[in-house]
Amino acid sequence: MTKGIFISLEGPDGAGKTTVLNKLLPALEKRHSAGVVTTREPGGVMIAEAIREVILDVNNTAMDSKTELLLYIAARRQHLVERVLPNLESGKLVLVDRFIDSSVAYQGAGRGLSSEDIKWLNTYATDGLEPDLTLLLDIESELGLSRIAQNSDREVNRLDLEKIDMHQRVRQGYLELAQENPERIKIIDASNDIETVVSEALKAIEAVLKPSKDA
Amino acid sequence: MTKGIFISLEGPDGAGKTTVLNKLLPALEKRHSAGVVTTREPGGVMIAEAIREVILDVNNTAMDSKTELLLYIAARRQHLVERVLPNLESGKLVLVDRFIDSSVAYQGAGRGLSSEDIKWLNTYATDGLEPDLTLLLDIESELGLSRIAQNSDREVNRLDLEKIDMHQRVRQGYLELAQENPERIKIIDASNDIETVVSEALKAIEAVLKPSKDA
Repeated sequence: MTKGIFISLEGPDGAGKTTVLNKLLPALEKRHSAGVVTTREPGGVMIAEAIREVILDVNNTAMDSKTELLLYIAARRQHLVERVLPNLESGKLVLVDRFIDSSVAYQGAGRGLSSEDIKWLNTYATDGLEPDLTLLLDIESELGLSRIAQNSDREVNRLDLEKIDMHQRVRQGYLELAQENPERIKIIDASNDIETVVSEALKAIEAVLKPSKDA
Repeated sequence: MTKGIFISLEGPDGAGKTTVLNKLLPALEKRHSAGVVTTREPGGVMIAEAIREVILDVNNTAMDSKTELLLYIAARRQHLVERVLPNLESGKLVLVDRFIDSSVAYQGAGRGLSSEDIKWLNTYATDGLEPDLTLLLDIESELGLSRIAQNSDREVNRLDLEKIDMHQRVRQGYLELAQENPERIKIIDASNDIETVVSEALKAIEAVLKPSKDA
């Protein structure tokens, strides 16, 4: 097994992942002397960023759902091999913004692809490596979407039914994953104020940091 | 099922796929009045070409084998959905340069990835669609490599042992696939002169064209 600590941050849009990640970073650096690396999916390394560009290219409207999923999985593989694994091997704490659960929540629950197939693909890309801990920032769909709308000067104000419906399916997908993986996935109520959210996140992280001190 | 005819052209480098494809085209157009479409993998449609660029980018030397495979599979999916299926649905004969067997031969036998996993990925990307006929242009590795060298003004003259070894593994992978799929895959001896090769290819194609006349 690897020597570092591997933590993923998950949750629907508007849950505040980026804010939480930035607030967590200094606290984690104090607690894990071997160093902390924060990174994101899809992307994080050159090849995965090139794949990200294909995924996000607004001209690629003809993209099939399975194509999109396979590209996310390819980017995951490369990011894992080039960035996650080497840092874990040197003992670092690696905190990744989105990982295996995003595919199940978005492409599975969200877009309707088989979650069994997605799990097969995740295992193929990661050789079965799972995070030591996954922080799931959970938020009511209406609240998450209204936060996005506030942050993006009314451009995303088309909170139509379809959008809420998709958001709700993604949230539901995450909650099901948390039920299936109670040991790994810790649900954090992201509707609380940011200090409470960060403090709960830190408490969960400290629980996985402790064993390594005894080792 | 689809109404058109789906044929793939496979074989190791230097077997002469492109030459054969160009020679076959006019003969096929005479024989299949609904029309003939020739295309290639990876690529053939905008998104798949963008993926092809990532795969072939000479700067991407850090690319992991599984990443490469997943990108080929993603390009296959998109090409199938956007180009192969619509043409088959309109009754055309679709002749594709490389398809599912290339992944098993190159990434499986060639690079050592599990061929069972590759077959799972192929089935996922194609929803189980296989060609009505696969023409496997088979050639001795030394002859295939010497043909490539002749065609590319000595730049590829580094016919080192590793290259021959890889070429031989790919060829072997193809021959095993042909053994596993005797109904679908027709082996054609590509060391013969081009007229013989094309005439054998046409004979095999006519065998799959006939039933559609009776239908």
